[in-house]
Amino acid sequence: MQMNNPKAVIVIIGNEILSGRTQDINIKFLTFNLGEIGVIIGEVRVISDDKQIIIRHILELSKQYDYVFTTGGIGPTHDDITSESIAEALGLKYELNAKAHQLLLDYYGAEKLNDARLRMAKMPEGAILINNPVSVAPGYIINNIYVLAGVPNIMQAMFASIKSSLKTGVKISSYSVTSFVLEGQIAGVLGKIQNNYNDLEIGSYPFFRDDKHGTSLVIRGYEKNLILKAANEIEAEIIKLGEDFNSKWDD
Amino acid sequence: MQMNNPKAVIVIIGNEILSGRTQDINIKFLTFNLGEIGVIIGEVRVISDDKQIIIRHILELSKQYDYVFTTGGIGPTHDDITSESIAEALGLKYELNAKAHQLLLDYYGAEKLNDARLRMAKMPEGAILINNPVSVAPGYIINNIYVLAGVPNIMQAMFASIKSSLKTGVKISSYSVTSFVLEGQIAGVLGKIQNNYNDLEIGSYPFFRDDKHGTSLVIRGYEKNLILKAANEIEAEIIKLGEDFNSKWDD
Repeated sequence: MQMNNPKAVIVIIGNEILSGRTQDINIKFLTFNLGEIGVIIGEVRVISDDKQIIIRHILELSKQYDYVFTTGGIGPTHDDITSESIAEALGLKYELNAKAHQLLLDYYGAEKLNDARLRMAKMPEGAILINNPVSVAPGYIINNIYVLAGVPNIMQAMFASIKSSLKTGVKISSYSVTSFVLEGQIAGVLGKIQNNYNDLEIGSYPFFRDDKHGTSLVIRGYEKNLILKAANEIEAEIIKLGEDFNSKWDD
Repeated sequence: MQMNNPKAVIVIIGNEILSGRTQDINIKFLTFNLGEIGVIIGEVRVISDDKQIIIRHILELSKQYDYVFTTGGIGPTHDDITSESIAEALGLKYELNAKAHQLLLDYYGAEKLNDARLRMAKMPEGAILINNPVSVAPGYIINNIYVLAGVPNIMQAMFASIKSSLKTGVKISSYSVTSFVLEGQIAGVLGKIQNNYNDLEIGSYPFFRDDKHGTSLVIRGYEKNLILKAANEIEAEIIKLGEDFNSKWDD
């Protein structure tokens, strides 16, 4: 069902996620918001703050995808090594960005702009800054790589400032039909409906709520009319099974 | 700082995560619980319910890591294709597992065990079952791949039943020093402390709480005494900066 939509990968860089210490919420935000503008997420990777590992993944993924979005590792501390790793991966100089330097000078003043904070202005040569309205130190774009902060509210603000500049694709619409039918009851007929709609992707997600098991059936595709047609067939099957349902567009 | 600990990768299989529709909580659970027994998580990938994609990642990762943990795609519906994909990746037959078949027969009875539900007993040949106390349909182990459900409470129950059978490593301990010092204030000295402790990994994580910015400094390593020594140096620096701190073991 894929059209000519841009394809992206998200790379979450951070030991705090990989150690299970921190619950990630950046994956959901980025996948959902990129989906909204028709950018297809091919995969997500969570990797550690390790230079050689970052280089390996960036090299591999920047060739494979239209966009690479990274989060994390651009702060002032010794474990913030995303920028120097990306510079090395791309064979670019890792240098003080004059505009970023000025932003930090204006914000901190010369006295408080110590060596550590100055690291936040060091980037691969040719980086285009991404505005950070929360704490000033910018993200940046280098080639097809978008380097964002890891702190969720800063990452979200950075994303808001670049969203309109991204290539978009035909938006994938999503419609959910939720009922207390069990997956195993409807799976057979659902597979047949999926077979009749090659341009749609029908997903089935069991849940447990109010002490009852149920299933969310999610229909995704580019054509809303086609989605509604398949949804009607699914809803008719749920009625046959003697259950009620709730339906809604997911966005 | 790595010792001879087993290394694992987690593969989250599911369009619902990749579309941003669902907030993943399996990554945090698995990374944390594997870390508890000294299994090092090399990376996490989130991939789509696509046979060729699953095959590609499983082939690559099962060679690279001691353990591969997958979640998702083992239910009764047409989009549950993890098992047939793994079988194909490993060059194994995808067949009805007799023990799993019996479990489903006992649970559903012959009448309700329709073709869709029967799919939950189809696995790569030679699979060793993983108990599912929540909804019976088992996970399984094949070679070094642990195939778990995607629904969090089922996945967690499956993990509990295999945890004690996993190879363990020296546990990585983690100690947090949290204060309202800013990252940029302490980054310089923190880098120096890190340089003096090659066997420790010191991470710095800024936060915003009660209208104030602060930093969590997380010290991880195999030796608790060494961790406490580095922590004391960090705490002394925080005091020099005129701030208070809270310290605790993370587990």
